[in-house]
Amino acid sequence: MALTTAFTKSLGVRHPIVLAPMGGSAGGALAAAVSEGGGLGMVAGGRSGREWLGRELELAAGLTDRPWGIGFLSWEVDLDTVAWALEHRPAAVLLSFGDPTPFADRIRDAGARLMVQVTTLDEARQALDAGADFVVAQGGEAGGHGGLRATLPFVPAVADLAAPTPVLAAGGIADGRGLAAVLALGAAGAVMGTRFQVSQEALVAPELVKRLLAAGSEDTERNRVLDIARGAPWPAHYTARTLRNAVIDRWRGREEELRHDATAQQTYREAAQGGDLDIVPIWAGEALDLITETCSATDLVTEIAERAEHALASAGRS
Amino acid sequence: MALTTAFTKSLGVRHPIVLAPMGGSAGGALAAAVSEGGGLGMVAGGRSGREWLGRELELAAGLTDRPWGIGFLSWEVDLDTVAWALEHRPAAVLLSFGDPTPFADRIRDAGARLMVQVTTLDEARQALDAGADFVVAQGGEAGGHGGLRATLPFVPAVADLAAPTPVLAAGGIADGRGLAAVLALGAAGAVMGTRFQVSQEALVAPELVKRLLAAGSEDTERNRVLDIARGAPWPAHYTARTLRNAVIDRWRGREEELRHDATAQQTYREAAQGGDLDIVPIWAGEALDLITETCSATDLVTEIAERAEHALASAGRS
Repeated sequence: MALTTAFTKSLGVRHPIVLAPMGGSAGGALAAAVSEGGGLGMVAGGRSGREWLGRELELAAGLTDRPWGIGFLSWEVDLDTVAWALEHRPAAVLLSFGDPTPFADRIRDAGARLMVQVTTLDEARQALDAGADFVVAQGGEAGGHGGLRATLPFVPAVADLAAPTPVLAAGGIADGRGLAAVLALGAAGAVMGTRFQVSQEALVAPELVKRLLAAGSEDTERNRVLDIARGAPWPAHYTARTLRNAVIDRWRGREEELRHDATAQQTYREAAQGGDLDIVPIWAGEALDLITETCSATDLVTEIAERAEHALASAGRS
Repeated sequence: MALTTAFTKSLGVRHPIVLAPMGGSAGGALAAAVSEGGGLGMVAGGRSGREWLGRELELAAGLTDRPWGIGFLSWEVDLDTVAWALEHRPAAVLLSFGDPTPFADRIRDAGARLMVQVTTLDEARQALDAGADFVVAQGGEAGGHGGLRATLPFVPAVADLAAPTPVLAAGGIADGRGLAAVLALGAAGAVMGTRFQVSQEALVAPELVKRLLAAGSEDTERNRVLDIARGAPWPAHYTARTLRNAVIDRWRGREEELRHDATAQQTYREAAQGGDLDIVPIWAGEALDLITETCSATDLVTEIAERAEHALASAGRS
């Protein structure tokens, strides 16, 4: 018997699993693979430009007839781009990191489900005020940008606040046990990033996959060092979880100093231009311990759903 | 049907719920109340002295015939004290924060179950080497001292490492949903602190209970400021989660400066002597959003177990 939630019913998908729209790597092939597996694939709408996005959206639409979605960064996207993307008929749009209000009506009017990712209770209130169909409670375990709350206590708090609006969980989830756990917390599904980052369909270089598979959760760290070094225009209250590296080790706790050190930033940017994996951000979530091999994203969705069912059925039944 | 795990079977308790042995507040009355409810009550063995501990252990033993335990701080306790406490016939001893090896054999030889709380995978390996019967994977969501891992991704990673040794989860758990979630992650039970801190049987002043109930998760923060200010001899790698206060606001990010500022420390200690709740540490976990009223600890154990069963039965069954 498949897992059934307010999310699977509303989206018409088989499994309560969502691909996190990871910038640069969640393209059309990965989104379609997750949707073909029975989850909801998401193409990353953030910061790659319309040419990239248009191509990847067409790719997704060409590879699957099942529902898929698009993710945008609310602090970065403009209404024009959202309206243009909606012409590709996504089943859902996920807005993260910033005020969703300017885009909410346009998305819902186009018939897409509005999903809003939040990192604090105040952001959850803002998402509900904007009319979110689903609130995604993201814990700081997540790879890439996020906040300070932890998924386990954050999800039920958001669920209590949002009811009857359903909540999804993000951050630190990489297998069937994690999915089962967040469903038990009251979530209607799980958003997963790092687990799919190492799948065969992700737009990720093999050398980077190798580094992720070799590293563990305790090799990751959440801070602002690399955003400041590379001059990324992210709002300052969103830190990023990446693999630790020598640049982070050097500047940890001295972010303000780095922010005012134009020479150090210039040196970093020159060195980072070639994509040197020893210094560029390698986004990675705290579930990395649980991720030890690559896989097909399509197969993975089914496997995670089956294992979640098993985890729920056997919990407390020794 | 009650929740049954390797923990409930090994300890002969009804519910997979453990009272965190919170210094100063987990006395004999609270431990006995949790045990009477069907969980495993724990008397705090740390830093209150033998006179206090002896009295509380006798109180626990007098109030319940069910199993109960004692918690010690491994970095602080000595073998003599452990041996003396074992004469009170605890069913289990929980060692936290430090190397359990010097105490492990004595505890197991006395017929008590050895539980070792860990905050990193290396500590988990050390606990297993010492022969722990149960490894408690503690996430940084926990109130009071702890580490940086988050419970949701940490528990399954420790479970994979420890198998077949069973694992309990601690940090960020305060209701049936949290217990259900960690059982789904593969844990054999949950350790809860802050939830019991506001129960009627805890050794906690009413004014402090009021503050905890009025505060939320985002009013808590993990750092070393108050340990440094009060000169607490805790190992530096264990930070503490407390309610945020003006002292923390003043010294956040400047811990090293505070450590060398004898005058500031002296001023703090004089001000803190009266127990002013605006400046002393108020230990509190990140599940605080979920804790809104006081209760009987005995009733609470049953309620949490029942709700956990319900959460597991209804997850993914909308």
